[in-house]
Amino acid sequence: MSRLTIALDAMGGDIGPRVTIPASIKALQKDPMLSLLLFGDSYQIRPLLEQVPESIQSRLTLIHCSRVIENNQGLSYALRHSKGTSMRLAIEAVQKGNAQACVSAGNTAALMGLAKIILQPVQGIERPALISTLPTVTGERSVMLDLGANIDCSAENLYQFALMGAVFAEQNLELVYPRIALLNIGIEEIKGNKAIREAAEMLKKHTALNYTGFIEGDLLLNGKADVIVSDGFIGNVALKTLEGSAKNMISLFKRNSSANTIIHNLKGLASKAIMQLFLKDSYRQLKKINPDQYNGASLIGLTAVVVKSHGGANIDGFAYAISDAALQARKKIPEKILSGLEKY
Amino acid sequence: MSRLTIALDAMGGDIGPRVTIPASIKALQKDPMLSLLLFGDSYQIRPLLEQVPESIQSRLTLIHCSRVIENNQGLSYALRHSKGTSMRLAIEAVQKGNAQACVSAGNTAALMGLAKIILQPVQGIERPALISTLPTVTGERSVMLDLGANIDCSAENLYQFALMGAVFAEQNLELVYPRIALLNIGIEEIKGNKAIREAAEMLKKHTALNYTGFIEGDLLLNGKADVIVSDGFIGNVALKTLEGSAKNMISLFKRNSSANTIIHNLKGLASKAIMQLFLKDSYRQLKKINPDQYNGASLIGLTAVVVKSHGGANIDGFAYAISDAALQARKKIPEKILSGLEKY
Repeated sequence: MSRLTIALDAMGGDIGPRVTIPASIKALQKDPMLSLLLFGDSYQIRPLLEQVPESIQSRLTLIHCSRVIENNQGLSYALRHSKGTSMRLAIEAVQKGNAQACVSAGNTAALMGLAKIILQPVQGIERPALISTLPTVTGERSVMLDLGANIDCSAENLYQFALMGAVFAEQNLELVYPRIALLNIGIEEIKGNKAIREAAEMLKKHTALNYTGFIEGDLLLNGKADVIVSDGFIGNVALKTLEGSAKNMISLFKRNSSANTIIHNLKGLASKAIMQLFLKDSYRQLKKINPDQYNGASLIGLTAVVVKSHGGANIDGFAYAISDAALQARKKIPEKILSGLEKY
Repeated sequence: MSRLTIALDAMGGDIGPRVTIPASIKALQKDPMLSLLLFGDSYQIRPLLEQVPESIQSRLTLIHCSRVIENNQGLSYALRHSKGTSMRLAIEAVQKGNAQACVSAGNTAALMGLAKIILQPVQGIERPALISTLPTVTGERSVMLDLGANIDCSAENLYQFALMGAVFAEQNLELVYPRIALLNIGIEEIKGNKAIREAAEMLKKHTALNYTGFIEGDLLLNGKADVIVSDGFIGNVALKTLEGSAKNMISLFKRNSSANTIIHNLKGLASKAIMQLFLKDSYRQLKKINPDQYNGASLIGLTAVVVKSHGGANIDGFAYAISDAALQARKKIPEKILSGLEKY
């Protein structure tokens, strides 16, 4: 592994430094070639670093700033008032070459807006997109984009998303010739809107891309495609619908696990133990297809790696987002997208 | 209950008469004021009616036709070659006044296309929509439209969908002042595309409609809205994503129920019995939020009731679709939509 520096917005997320700082320490312990630039309020952050061993401290640089972009700020307000905020400084550190990637759990719209303005899209990419990894019921993983960065998309946009998604899947999931599908309302060629049908025609022509056709919403988790492409509106609704139904299933499951009166009446230790053994497996399987467990989405198509962690991520979740950013930076995803564009 | 005649496409669906005929008999047994016109191949249908008691036979009229619209036929081909098919004859029976509603499990696009041409939209409705009932985790039901009849929609279209959905929810779910929400990628006013934002403004102005704001995909099953409105592309993807994740969860659950080796090794009858009691509840709950269980969608906004059953519906499912059509016809949903349009 190569040496790498990542810039962190230490103030982002629902909890802030009490999650981002322990997560940073965890990520540094796991990755000895990693250094971090922490942007945030040193009065909140410094006490959290007191017990940290010297070997970790030496790879940690704290840059104080007192300003923060709040989650409830609208995009245009946030952009106008972004100067000197932890999020903007973290992105600027990448632009100046002080870091090779950036991670934030803050305001998604502001992060996308600032990253686009400051880091710029890869030459030839019209619009960066939000991409994330989806678990599948077969135990593999797929990637899906765009998840909300672009509401209306042209055929050319969708085509570029497919290309970026293929590069991402090749590098991050280590897949060869990943299968690409366009999310649509049917699998027949005549289905969908004009942009989707035209994107399908463009993808069919490029044999270097493994385009397999349309996919419908009911097969998103079934591993039928490695790269699932749609505009940001459809992708966002589909991903949230998946998350919602997984959460609902899990909560129904949990509720039943604790409230079933027949079982309560039995109360035998033996039957309880059996139950727990039994349920552990089912529950783990159900959790596996909760996309919430895969923390973070990446803004793909920019000249550098930007990872957006869930606002509600816990320490493990945020540490995963940092490792994910490190992986993408080491795999040089932005450069690979540029060379992919030149190739196709 | 009033006397009512429903026209059935007896040939539609994956199985055809071996499902539609027993389902018809079931529906007639349950509803003594109902009569059915069965359109289909009498050589296939007549043997299935042999054992049927006279009291049921007397409310059943078989009209022979040998032509059928196949599931794999494209829309334009199907429409051009629809003359004399079981589906078209069933719709024409409604147009001629021989029946008050129509049910088919056949080719969805052909059914929508033929129904629009032959039955015509209610005066003032630009576009009919596909509507269905969704279960919620709170045990109530919501309605959702459009589920795929219209790909691109204007603000006016979405507004009309909201109005039709509200009438449907009032009548079919017996709700007073049902809560309407627009499916979007965020709940803030600035989210979404122009059509959605404009539809929101239109809905806010009409206090006779109980518009409550935007809803995101993760809360579709949570009973936060009674009427969920979107264009047909978004609605179709969201519904199929819900169906897919519910099916996946149930199949993971089933797989674990039979394959858990620890349990298999125990093999005690007692522990098995406990397990079955325990799982029955969880499984029933999981199944409850599988939208597949609610059979059929309705084409709303036409001058008469048209119900589309799932192609793979079993006898109970198709019988449910017939009863649903009867309920809608008796509640006079098309007339209520017309008077709703005049009111708002």
